[in-house]
Amino acid sequence: MSIEETAEQPILARTDEGGVVTLRLNRPGQFNALSEAMLAALQAEIDALARDADARCVVLESTGRAFCAGHDLREMRSQPSLDYYRELFRKCGSVMQGLQALPVPVIAKVRGIATAAGCQLVASCDLAVAADTATFAVSGINVGLFCSTPAVALSRNVSAKRAFEMLVTARFIDAAQAQDWGLINDAVPDTALDGRVQALADDILAKSPSAIRYGKRMFYKQRQMALADAYDYAGDVMARNMMEADACEGIDAFLQKRRPRWQALGQQS
Amino acid sequence: MSIEETAEQPILARTDEGGVVTLRLNRPGQFNALSEAMLAALQAEIDALARDADARCVVLESTGRAFCAGHDLREMRSQPSLDYYRELFRKCGSVMQGLQALPVPVIAKVRGIATAAGCQLVASCDLAVAADTATFAVSGINVGLFCSTPAVALSRNVSAKRAFEMLVTARFIDAAQAQDWGLINDAVPDTALDGRVQALADDILAKSPSAIRYGKRMFYKQRQMALADAYDYAGDVMARNMMEADACEGIDAFLQKRRPRWQALGQQS
Amino acid sequence: MSIEETAEQPILARTDEGGVVTLRLNRPGQFNALSEAMLAALQAEIDALARDADARCVVLESTGRAFCAGHDLREMRSQPSLDYYRELFRKCGSVMQGLQALPVPVIAKVRGIATAAGCQLVASCDLAVAADTATFAVSGINVGLFCSTPAVALSRNVSAKRAFEMLVTARFIDAAQAQDWGLINDAVPDTALDGRVQALADDILAKSPSAIRYGKRMFYKQRQMALADAYDYAGDVMARNMMEADACEGIDAFLQKRRPRWQALGQQS
Repeated sequence: MSIEETAEQPILARTDEGGVVTLRLNRPGQFNALSEAMLAALQAEIDALARDADARCVVLESTGRAFCAGHDLREMRSQPSLDYYRELFRKCGSVMQGLQALPVPVIAKVRGIATAAGCQLVASCDLAVAADTATFAVSGINVGLFCSTPAVALSRNVSAKRAFEMLVTARFIDAAQAQDWGLINDAVPDTALDGRVQALADDILAKSPSAIRYGKRMFYKQRQMALADAYDYAGDVMARNMMEADACEGIDAFLQKRRPRWQALGQQS
Repeated sequence: MSIEETAEQPILARTDEGGVVTLRLNRPGQFNALSEAMLAALQAEIDALARDADARCVVLESTGRAFCAGHDLREMRSQPSLDYYRELFRKCGSVMQGLQALPVPVIAKVRGIATAAGCQLVASCDLAVAADTATFAVSGINVGLFCSTPAVALSRNVSAKRAFEMLVTARFIDAAQAQDWGLINDAVPDTALDGRVQALADDILAKSPSAIRYGKRMFYKQRQMALADAYDYAGDVMARNMMEADACEGIDAFLQKRRPRWQALGQQS
Repeated sequence: MSIEETAEQPILARTDEGGVVTLRLNRPGQFNALSEAMLAALQAEIDALARDADARCVVLESTGRAFCAGHDLREMRSQPSLDYYRELFRKCGSVMQGLQALPVPVIAKVRGIATAAGCQLVASCDLAVAADTATFAVSGINVGLFCSTPAVALSRNVSAKRAFEMLVTARFIDAAQAQDWGLINDAVPDTALDGRVQALADDILAKSPSAIRYGKRMFYKQRQMALADAYDYAGDVMARNMMEADACEGIDAFLQKRRPRWQALGQQS
């Protein structure tokens, strides 16, 4: 067992506070690279969160000067086999898709560089807020390895020519550019970052837990459908959402000009 | 029959002027909510417009301080059945898809708030111009009802993270933000709104009626296809468009440096 | 044989310099219109480039005051048959898709107007840089011929309402607007255009030839897939990319803090 995996210094630290689960990438000496151990730790937390009725919102943050520099290149080079790489990228893709499949919103809180699979992590979260000093790149092409899996997430956030330019040039964009292009929701001064992410989490905590879960699952699924299919599906989801106790309470509270009281998930029928 | 449905105060007023059909949401006391009666009135006009060879352009506008505040929550709460809600959202989806399926362009002219299914209406029109005081939100989450069907239209206009943030936070965006994000085409001072929409309609009226119809139908259909299929389809549409009298006249007029004279639809072969 | 096709004045001039292949549309008197001869010349170069292991980057530029004004309307009107138009648009679509299918990046260098199929050319390149005096429109609607095939490329670069407005109004947008909307990557003063495109090409030339080829092919293919399929596919591509000599060299060079030396394509295993 390496020092990284000791209890004192978990490579992925989890804290729970009032429904907000914070996952902190904690390998600052390696720029929080997505080593096999880090991917396994992320997958384990994602699997746990998928069954966690108390989680309302997840924040993905980092220790040190980098958010995440992508894969662990030294570790990758030590295992030169096609099957190994296929399995590695399968695991990475499972983590990225797992964030989107979680029943609750995931916010990336970005300080420092987010490169290659680190930029993909940001793209794969539902929401992202960055310090205005953060920078973003898909820079694998600089080492002869085109960022193919990062391109999957990037090109679903950023328009074609912008994504293509980032991928073939390895160009860094700053947080303002990332916001303008839709890769992140907001860029704020570093000192305001924690507060801005907490405010966003608080916004989500103030909503009905069940309604948020209905919505997140629906959002990504309908995006991949033709329009008529998307409407059939979303209409059915919304009808079922409307039968929940929280929707009745929410509408009644609105009509009575009072604050709604949401049910915890366990209480839902 | 309620006062809303009397001839003096139709809940949806239609006026025709020179090929421009204006549909005005006219339930200002209820913020032009999409009650069952309003959805039925919209569907009836859409059905009529689908067969109307004289219509060249549709403008969707509103009476009062709101463009449209979405579904009628009081009416919805009075019918607590899954089948009722399924049918309600099916009707609403039919109206939204019907706007896109109309053979002529539909322009949303937005004054005031456009929330939930009201924001979806804006997203579902081909074009949208708003007063710079207009605001937009998908705020169902505030009453425990995630805006699932609005998300279908919103996420086809606005990039993923922006749409997701609006949906989970119920955040209002102003008209300038809506323009920057692509939800609307233009934001102008309130006093300039009528003129700007009329100018846009006049631009469309100056074009060949048949060519506009070829184009609108094609535009949305090809967007849902893979690239090669989209080219096969669009190429066939354009070849047939080229065989129309208006294309011949238009090209001849261009080559002869004169103004073209378009045929009315009934005259087309 | 017309004067256009003489050796002194080819309608499409090709120059090769250090891996950069420049294709210059060279019918300035006809605003570089995409006549049958021009489409055939483009297709021939595309077919040759698809097999050219020395090409690393393609630049598509123009002679004269226009980048490209679209189809040759006079030629089109002289052949009024549905089969002819179907075949013409098939050929045009083949050129546009051929640019995207090329194994190396294609940069549009835009001076002057890019209208109708000329705007489609810009949209169909992987990257585009324009002089800040360039303008863009899909103006077929002005002659009664909706820009259906240009719409296929435009709507895959620009959001729905913006693309629709351009198509039904024939409105020109300037280079700054085109950049803001994602149709082009960059707009620079005319005097800086050659240098900016050369710098972009140099950026690409500095990368591994094989990695760029892995990436470009993958980029467009995965965009048309559902997320899980896209990850399966991109993961497999990236694993195979990782087994190439250049990826090994690139990562080793990075870990050893030295510059990598890429293999020419012919040397790759």
